[in-house]
Amino acid sequence: MTTIKDSVHDHIEVEGVAETLLDTPEMQRLRRIKQLGTVQYVYPSANHTRFEHSLGVYHLASRALSHLGIEGDSAAHVEAAALLHDVGHGPYSHNIEDVTHRHTGKYHDDVAELVTRGNVGDVLEAEGLDPKRVANLVSGDGKFGQLVSGELDVDRMDYLVRDAHHTGVPYGTIDHERLIRELTFVDGELVLAEGNVQTAESLLLARALMNPTVYAHHVARISKAMLRRASERLLEEPDIDAEALRRMDDADLLVGLRLNPSTEAFAERLATRNLYKRAVWAELSDVPEAVLTADHEEISKLERAIADSADVDPTSVILDVPSRPSMKESTSRVMVNGEIRQLERESPLVQALRTAQEQQWRLGVYAPEDATERVGRAAANHLGLDIDGALVKDVRRGIHTTLDEFE
Amino acid sequence: MTTIKDSVHDHIEVEGVAETLLDTPEMQRLRRIKQLGTVQYVYPSANHTRFEHSLGVYHLASRALSHLGIEGDSAAHVEAAALLHDVGHGPYSHNIEDVTHRHTGKYHDDVAELVTRGNVGDVLEAEGLDPKRVANLVSGDGKFGQLVSGELDVDRMDYLVRDAHHTGVPYGTIDHERLIRELTFVDGELVLAEGNVQTAESLLLARALMNPTVYAHHVARISKAMLRRASERLLEEPDIDAEALRRMDDADLLVGLRLNPSTEAFAERLATRNLYKRAVWAELSDVPEAVLTADHEEISKLERAIADSADVDPTSVILDVPSRPSMKESTSRVMVNGEIRQLERESPLVQALRTAQEQQWRLGVYAPEDATERVGRAAANHLGLDIDGALVKDVRRGIHTTLDEFE
Amino acid sequence: MTTIKDSVHDHIEVEGVAETLLDTPEMQRLRRIKQLGTVQYVYPSANHTRFEHSLGVYHLASRALSHLGIEGDSAAHVEAAALLHDVGHGPYSHNIEDVTHRHTGKYHDDVAELVTRGNVGDVLEAEGLDPKRVANLVSGDGKFGQLVSGELDVDRMDYLVRDAHHTGVPYGTIDHERLIRELTFVDGELVLAEGNVQTAESLLLARALMNPTVYAHHVARISKAMLRRASERLLEEPDIDAEALRRMDDADLLVGLRLNPSTEAFAERLATRNLYKRAVWAELSDVPEAVLTADHEEISKLERAIADSADVDPTSVILDVPSRPSMKESTSRVMVNGEIRQLERESPLVQALRTAQEQQWRLGVYAPEDATERVGRAAANHLGLDIDGALVKDVRRGIHTTLDEFE
Amino acid sequence: MTTIKDSVHDHIEVEGVAETLLDTPEMQRLRRIKQLGTVQYVYPSANHTRFEHSLGVYHLASRALSHLGIEGDSAAHVEAAALLHDVGHGPYSHNIEDVTHRHTGKYHDDVAELVTRGNVGDVLEAEGLDPKRVANLVSGDGKFGQLVSGELDVDRMDYLVRDAHHTGVPYGTIDHERLIRELTFVDGELVLAEGNVQTAESLLLARALMNPTVYAHHVARISKAMLRRASERLLEEPDIDAEALRRMDDADLLVGLRLNPSTEAFAERLATRNLYKRAVWAELSDVPEAVLTADHEEISKLERAIADSADVDPTSVILDVPSRPSMKESTSRVMVNGEIRQLERESPLVQALRTAQEQQWRLGVYAPEDATERVGRAAANHLGLDIDGALVKDVRRGIHTTLDEFE
Repeated sequence: MTTIKDSVHDHIEVEGVAETLLDTPEMQRLRRIKQLGTVQYVYPSANHTRFEHSLGVYHLASRALSHLGIEGDSAAHVEAAALLHDVGHGPYSHNIEDVTHRHTGKYHDDVAELVTRGNVGDVLEAEGLDPKRVANLVSGDGKFGQLVSGELDVDRMDYLVRDAHHTGVPYGTIDHERLIRELTFVDGELVLAEGNVQTAESLLLARALMNPTVYAHHVARISKAMLRRASERLLEEPDIDAEALRRMDDADLLVGLRLNPSTEAFAERLATRNLYKRAVWAELSDVPEAVLTADHEEISKLERAIADSADVDPTSVILDVPSRPSMKESTSRVMVNGEIRQLERESPLVQALRTAQEQQWRLGVYAPEDATERVGRAAANHLGLDIDGALVKDVRRGIHTTLDEFE
Repeated sequence: MTTIKDSVHDHIEVEGVAETLLDTPEMQRLRRIKQLGTVQYVYPSANHTRFEHSLGVYHLASRALSHLGIEGDSAAHVEAAALLHDVGHGPYSHNIEDVTHRHTGKYHDDVAELVTRGNVGDVLEAEGLDPKRVANLVSGDGKFGQLVSGELDVDRMDYLVRDAHHTGVPYGTIDHERLIRELTFVDGELVLAEGNVQTAESLLLARALMNPTVYAHHVARISKAMLRRASERLLEEPDIDAEALRRMDDADLLVGLRLNPSTEAFAERLATRNLYKRAVWAELSDVPEAVLTADHEEISKLERAIADSADVDPTSVILDVPSRPSMKESTSRVMVNGEIRQLERESPLVQALRTAQEQQWRLGVYAPEDATERVGRAAANHLGLDIDGALVKDVRRGIHTTLDEFE
Repeated sequence: MTTIKDSVHDHIEVEGVAETLLDTPEMQRLRRIKQLGTVQYVYPSANHTRFEHSLGVYHLASRALSHLGIEGDSAAHVEAAALLHDVGHGPYSHNIEDVTHRHTGKYHDDVAELVTRGNVGDVLEAEGLDPKRVANLVSGDGKFGQLVSGELDVDRMDYLVRDAHHTGVPYGTIDHERLIRELTFVDGELVLAEGNVQTAESLLLARALMNPTVYAHHVARISKAMLRRASERLLEEPDIDAEALRRMDDADLLVGLRLNPSTEAFAERLATRNLYKRAVWAELSDVPEAVLTADHEEISKLERAIADSADVDPTSVILDVPSRPSMKESTSRVMVNGEIRQLERESPLVQALRTAQEQQWRLGVYAPEDATERVGRAAANHLGLDIDGALVKDVRRGIHTTLDEFE
Repeated sequence: MTTIKDSVHDHIEVEGVAETLLDTPEMQRLRRIKQLGTVQYVYPSANHTRFEHSLGVYHLASRALSHLGIEGDSAAHVEAAALLHDVGHGPYSHNIEDVTHRHTGKYHDDVAELVTRGNVGDVLEAEGLDPKRVANLVSGDGKFGQLVSGELDVDRMDYLVRDAHHTGVPYGTIDHERLIRELTFVDGELVLAEGNVQTAESLLLARALMNPTVYAHHVARISKAMLRRASERLLEEPDIDAEALRRMDDADLLVGLRLNPSTEAFAERLATRNLYKRAVWAELSDVPEAVLTADHEEISKLERAIADSADVDPTSVILDVPSRPSMKESTSRVMVNGEIRQLERESPLVQALRTAQEQQWRLGVYAPEDATERVGRAAANHLGLDIDGALVKDVRRGIHTTLDEFE
């Protein structure tokens, strides 16, 4: 048994197959992938990695399994899946996942190829585990898959607390120990035991507060959009394909962008935190349906059209249309009066948080600082926005920004 | 200048009049009054006092004044008021305030007599401060009174964080430093600056989560109700009047209850945590309006009637009808698009939290363990409740209880 | 199983006999005894109790037993002893123990009578445990007694961390989880496993830093000395004997001192933090051997003589001669190269800390503020001290005082 | 003014010239340099950067200046120096500094060229500051230089607390706020005020405990030695010179090592945590003076000789001879009886800690796992060590290792 000291959970005991898995290059690579990608441009201390998060998820999974009385083969598979659940992440975690997904059709939790073959597959088989079963658990399949990926999974319990510890934003500080103690299986479904409507709400609220303050902070969004744009460019190079890019780490991508003539300008900007600024920042209700449903092709076309009208270089316009807000936790299940109930049926907060999320949603158009006005006008025109309202809202209401660290 | 080490705010600097006020018997008495009264029956570490809380509120007031650029005479008065804001608390803080209020007509923030006369008044006058102005600030009067007692006051910023630190329940861990930095005065009103709708919400949510988990935990409510009942008895004794009781500390009251034959049984029960149990635990919608609006006299009558029907001693029935939920923070003011707006108009959460609070509201009837069934049936009858539903809800849904420490 | 939320260890699971023991009046009484007695005069947040500490010690004992693979009967006895280890504490913990010891011949860990009889004895027997064996474990007897009371016991692991949490002084923040994981039994002796010389040192250092800053802070010492003096007086009253005093709680003693004419002046001073001040504060090397070895009788005589010379009331002089410094942890055992070694043989720090403790040692003479000069001179005379040096050292060097909170 | 949220100090206010300096590429580069280099191989959460540390040091400097009453020009220079004090760090902080120093003659605090020219120099001059004066302050010159680099500097106050927060090892948790409040200037020297011998000791002890547990953990030393060896190789490449290497960030170096045929094997090992193991681990007293005083040339020669004898590739042997222990804090100055005294004259701990450090000192010889035995014997031979003793000590006594994370 190995004991690893963690800044969040103190001592983490790693045993059995997990101990061997830690040594694989696939897991070690996660040491070089930041958990929160470009969020460190807003919160300078947010440099924690997918590696320590994976250890944390493994730890919480072990504790949950022990509380649930699950042992043996099932427990070993769930623990392996918990440790491996992020092994498919590309550089900068979720930041450029959309880009690689367009080229490969795969998301980070599509880990079958990583888990069933190569080092990881070998370790799993050598230890008598079924790699395919582990891959399915990572995808959240089956009864025990809910523990790894689901509304009440240990993944989010770890990341909320960990992100709070490293950003300094206290909103994520949930009572994860209580959550784990109250998990139970009823008719094959993972639920919180009686008397825990509020426990479930607390998880939901923590996410609702961390979201605009940390994960979707406008500076994090802008730098992410720049990174995404640069990565698209990089993929146009003949020697780099999306599968290779997915297996890079943060350092590879950063240096790759620097060394490539078509991306070095972006690399330079990111390296010096010389970021684009918001040219437009518009609310959901002000954005035409056609823009909301535009696909990547249409977005690119709009960007080019805006750049043309504003008389700027095409790389100087980034149109950032987030998907409509969703709230996975809303379907968390809690026992109420002996029945399994979905949280959204029990808690008046769920609908309110949904409304709040829609209010916080923003479409962004980003451009170099000296071009924001021109780009803003051109964008408003092409997107069918009321430009004055959009910009006023930018300055005045905005989402909650804990700090703007030199904007 | 004196520097005091605090478990929550680390070093607290106390200067000027505040330093002298700390030495008065009135302030020193707060060392012997627990901040959370009977909550320690649920959370054994919750033994912090009104004294350290008062220091914390003083500290946050000083920081807020400094951020707001308020100095001199106004600042000195606000700081004195912050330090003195709880000086009127009786033993066990809010726990028996209803009782003393019925006899004296005064609440704990009615501090005029304490602040304008005696040691405190003398100190204030000696230092050139106006005691009446300080007393008014404690009541929340005037522009600066909002800092001491209002929707965005530093009182709740301190107690949320402090209660979280001492109970171990993380929900109260707000970003108090951000709140203080974003306070500003607009047209004489204390508001949060632009971009802080979510900051205001976070304060509201912290309270909403701490409330059922800590402040209104059923064990804390039961023991509080027993303490209240015992205090009423004590006041029937010839040598104790309500004004004297208000000036006692926790030790006085505890020993007083022990030494008095009519209250010693309650004292014994409290000392050994041999508490009454819930005979009824009913939801708001199940309680007839007449019961909800019953005054003290009518409640007492109902208790006697229930005791009669259940054939138990009158002291064996306590009917606990909390007032309807309110939410002071809902009227917090935030700047939005250059206008002062009430939070409840901006945030969909406010209405949802109000609904949640109504769902969590419970009427309780408490009795010695072996009498709960008889008393429950009698109470349901007299109160016009559907007994089965009421009891089922007790067991099944309940409010969120972080822990039930031997129930 | 009951789960209790603790501010230090988060969730504490209480099972079996421990759960029933918690309900005894003897254990519940510890809720009303402050862990650090008069230290709260220096650190206002230090209001934690022997009850939460006892829970913490029980929790750490359980964890240690589980790491050591000890189960069944032995584990149950150790857990009961851990929970009960402080049940013999009188009001204000160690503060007046010298006084009651003089009258009863018993210290707080002489728990045989409490543990073998009455409620506690009944519970233990009903659960099939041997009360005498539990009492012996509390005294540190036998192999497993070392876990409860010894150089490496879980008692000090809990109190260092807990006292740090509640005073705000970080020095006590040890890595208790590591200590527990490294405990092992070799030849019946409790030792730290190989590679832990520094782990053992860290425990020693934490105590060495907490001692002058917290436990022996001069304000805590003065108020403790006043409390002791008052308690002696109280014991001269016909209706109070030392055995009864030992079973009081903090509130009883406080009110007792208030209600008794011969002690009400002390009670008033303590209630208003109107403490005596240092008239003399002398280093070890300046104090004659005869004073260092004086017994209670001789100390009293000296006090009266000093009072006479200074022409003050006898109660106005308190002579406080601490015992010579000792360092229990110095004999902690650590495995080194396969042998059990005493820490003091392995670590150069032990001797240095011993020297440091001697340097920090101070004899104190305390008196009302306006009498300090007169009393100081008289005391120097009677004690054979060089008065100027003694007083200069008071002001100049002193021990480390984290804060002097209005001196 | 900009406010930045920090995981350690919460809100950090950055004003004036500091705000502009933060935007320079030189400062932004520190975002990509880990504070503790290879320590993350031992403590996976230790991914914090020189950037956040620099902000922390700036913050503590500002607070110290404010307590000391230093304003205006002097304060602005000190604040700039505090922010810039680590701007000269190469990739992996101190890890490869010996290597670049051999080629450039410069250490990381030789910042004159970076601070007096280029972006940083321009900003300083534009804001009316003297770049040369700032560079001198970084070197610790002059009265105020002591605040930036000296025995009581704010640099170590930040890093101890920050490293504790991110590794999870509590030993570094000092009372930095107290240290800052007690700093004062006497006769131009930075000293701690009267009554702070123990405050000074606490700083010393924190370092003494963090050192073997964190900074000099054997796994961190081994990986550092491998990184150093690889960097030496890299510098033999024609297109890389030491000045360029010094200006790289962690990503540059990592990718550089990967892409270069002569270093890719090391890069692969580091990327997969496939580290060398200890072939020898010898105590100070067992190492001949000639080895202790060997220069780089001689060390290289010894390594080659050992490799020859063990019949392994020359890259397979790393001889790691740390310099003899020193203890900068031992000369901290504290006021005692009105005089400035060096801590080592006042505190018996200083000499003891020096002895402890010598006991913890180890010479290491590292080799691939399958070659440790052969290399160990050859090394013992060439270095004149008693091989059996050396290896036994490796296994048995060792330094304190908080965790061995898969060794």
